[in-house]
Amino acid sequence: MTFAWISLTTDYGLSDGFVAACHGVIARHAPAVRVIDVTHLVPPGDVRRGAHVLAQTAPHLPPSVHVAVVDPGVGTSRRAVAIETPGGLLVGPDNGLLLLAADGLGGVSAAAQLTNPEWLGDAVSATFHGRDIFAPAAARLALGAPLAEAGPPVDGLVQLPAPRLHLGDGVIEAEVITVDRFGNVQLAAPGEALDRLGPHLLVDGVRATRGSTFGDVAPGELVAFVDSAGQVALAINGGRAAVVLSVSPGDVLRLNVR
Amino acid sequence: MTFAWISLTTDYGLSDGFVAACHGVIARHAPAVRVIDVTHLVPPGDVRRGAHVLAQTAPHLPPSVHVAVVDPGVGTSRRAVAIETPGGLLVGPDNGLLLLAADGLGGVSAAAQLTNPEWLGDAVSATFHGRDIFAPAAARLALGAPLAEAGPPVDGLVQLPAPRLHLGDGVIEAEVITVDRFGNVQLAAPGEALDRLGPHLLVDGVRATRGSTFGDVAPGELVAFVDSAGQVALAINGGRAAVVLSVSPGDVLRLNVR
Amino acid sequence: MTFAWISLTTDYGLSDGFVAACHGVIARHAPAVRVIDVTHLVPPGDVRRGAHVLAQTAPHLPPSVHVAVVDPGVGTSRRAVAIETPGGLLVGPDNGLLLLAADGLGGVSAAAQLTNPEWLGDAVSATFHGRDIFAPAAARLALGAPLAEAGPPVDGLVQLPAPRLHLGDGVIEAEVITVDRFGNVQLAAPGEALDRLGPHLLVDGVRATRGSTFGDVAPGELVAFVDSAGQVALAINGGRAAVVLSVSPGDVLRLNVR
Repeated sequence: MTFAWISLTTDYGLSDGFVAACHGVIARHAPAVRVIDVTHLVPPGDVRRGAHVLAQTAPHLPPSVHVAVVDPGVGTSRRAVAIETPGGLLVGPDNGLLLLAADGLGGVSAAAQLTNPEWLGDAVSATFHGRDIFAPAAARLALGAPLAEAGPPVDGLVQLPAPRLHLGDGVIEAEVITVDRFGNVQLAAPGEALDRLGPHLLVDGVRATRGSTFGDVAPGELVAFVDSAGQVALAINGGRAAVVLSVSPGDVLRLNVR
Repeated sequence: MTFAWISLTTDYGLSDGFVAACHGVIARHAPAVRVIDVTHLVPPGDVRRGAHVLAQTAPHLPPSVHVAVVDPGVGTSRRAVAIETPGGLLVGPDNGLLLLAADGLGGVSAAAQLTNPEWLGDAVSATFHGRDIFAPAAARLALGAPLAEAGPPVDGLVQLPAPRLHLGDGVIEAEVITVDRFGNVQLAAPGEALDRLGPHLLVDGVRATRGSTFGDVAPGELVAFVDSAGQVALAINGGRAAVVLSVSPGDVLRLNVR
Repeated sequence: MTFAWISLTTDYGLSDGFVAACHGVIARHAPAVRVIDVTHLVPPGDVRRGAHVLAQTAPHLPPSVHVAVVDPGVGTSRRAVAIETPGGLLVGPDNGLLLLAADGLGGVSAAAQLTNPEWLGDAVSATFHGRDIFAPAAARLALGAPLAEAGPPVDGLVQLPAPRLHLGDGVIEAEVITVDRFGNVQLAAPGEALDRLGPHLLVDGVRATRGSTFGDVAPGELVAFVDSAGQVALAINGGRAAVVLSVSPGDVLRLNVR
């Protein structure tokens, strides 16, 4: 099986040449494959954030080899892996970064550790596995190399702890997963959870209204809605909900009936 | 008529997966079409800024379907539209974002509201029309679907108010349109307007010299020139004109003969 | 000789349409050529930084025409040049930006000044040579136009001053070349220089350990290692070496045996 597309999700930033080096390695190994950059602005080392952005984006891409590198353990004993799912392949460190996306692509059907020396660059640096291990492996996989050739099967892939979520009687307590560029706050609660709360809510004591977009409330008011990833989210019409609610990813918000 | 290129101009930022989701939708619908990112760093909701950056860039791109999404009214009653011009197509919200670029591409020859349900994604979110309405429509149009198939013709496209501009006897009063990365200040005055002022000017009382680039004045001095978009602009040799003049987009500057 | 790839390295930033205009010009002249963006976030006018990021990235790209534009002298008498090397072509201003990369690609085998009026855009602006001179020239060169057609041969290409480097008995004094997104500090010393210092070091008086990655030291401790570009570098496990050492590019650090 071959793939026409590779996606890249990293915390490399856009000021250095790291992303371009990965593009270059892919171009040299698999020139006909095209690359979609998911984001390279994952906060440095923030595996959870990387996992969520990849998981929420991958289903909208064509069948791809998804490379993700948020890798505070680079150069240590953490494993480098490739994961097969019904919806595509995932390549990166075995630190939990890939498994949320694997779920969204149909679940893990197989996984291999990237140990085949023929798959690696000539000289593998201790600090830049994106360029030296993950990109070359992704290029080979996109060209149709079998997963089993990459290395031995892997069991016990590392999982991130589940985000905190409590669905009670007239109440949702849920961890903040992301804050987007517009200050909208996405929670670790599936959109349908909102149905238990009705049209009038309190969010950590702040009055909010159930709606489908920020335009459903007056300027400056808070709306609770199901966002484009299917999650419960909070927005302010013309404002930044994350500022008004004073929350960052990892904080927990309490929504209850008003 | 088909297009080999789609351009994207948004305020989505580069930290989330929003831009990649749009790339992904285009790749799935029209894999042979290539995408040029104009910018995704339009300040959130700044329709005027989005309109100017698109208008100044589109003429330098190959014939394209230009998608632009700076859309503070997403999910409200504002229309989603596609516009035909002699130089390409434009797709986005009907909030004035597209019309400056349409002028630069030869003017509006036809416009349609994007209402055909077959053109939309399976589930259209209330908050992410870039992914669910505009990108799929652009892909179809690039592949040659006729504009009339998108929906009914649209009259009375929403226009942005014209920027303030007064050309008087020995004086130009003009709104600041953009400040670029180098701190250069671009005004809402066509380059030829400078000819009425001669070589020695005052800009809000600050001494400036007419030139063709900042290298024409001594370090630290202000130069008035015609910029690469054909507009009157101000720069400081080795400095940032926007800081020295204390201006932002929307402010008005007065240039007069010294 | 033709090239399937063009790379772009600039200080244009990502907020304006400058980068897209360059992509557009290339797409119009050479639609089959593909573009890899090295970075567009070189600090404005920082020729040295642009030179290093290009030099460290270009060897990992496929054979390309590398366009680089960090050009504080745009519109002045500085020359516009194209340089031929065994590993690819380089196009940009003659201000030292290109020569480090040329060294890494095998050295300068020929150079031409970009003066042929047929190679330029219809109207060459005084301030945007990326769009009007360098991108169109790169497109022609990628399509196989001979370097000699671009203009007359160039001698005496402008060189950047060499970064400060002193390798003594048990001591390295070296200029900081770059600080990357992770706060890692790269020095102007080749990796093998570390061998003269042994496992225990002082870096401007701060205790450090020789290792191959930050995972080799305890959290909060400083490691000296050979980075992915083959240079001596300093990192803190879980921290930012540039902050702890209070250094920026251009500063000099002293490493000695502890």
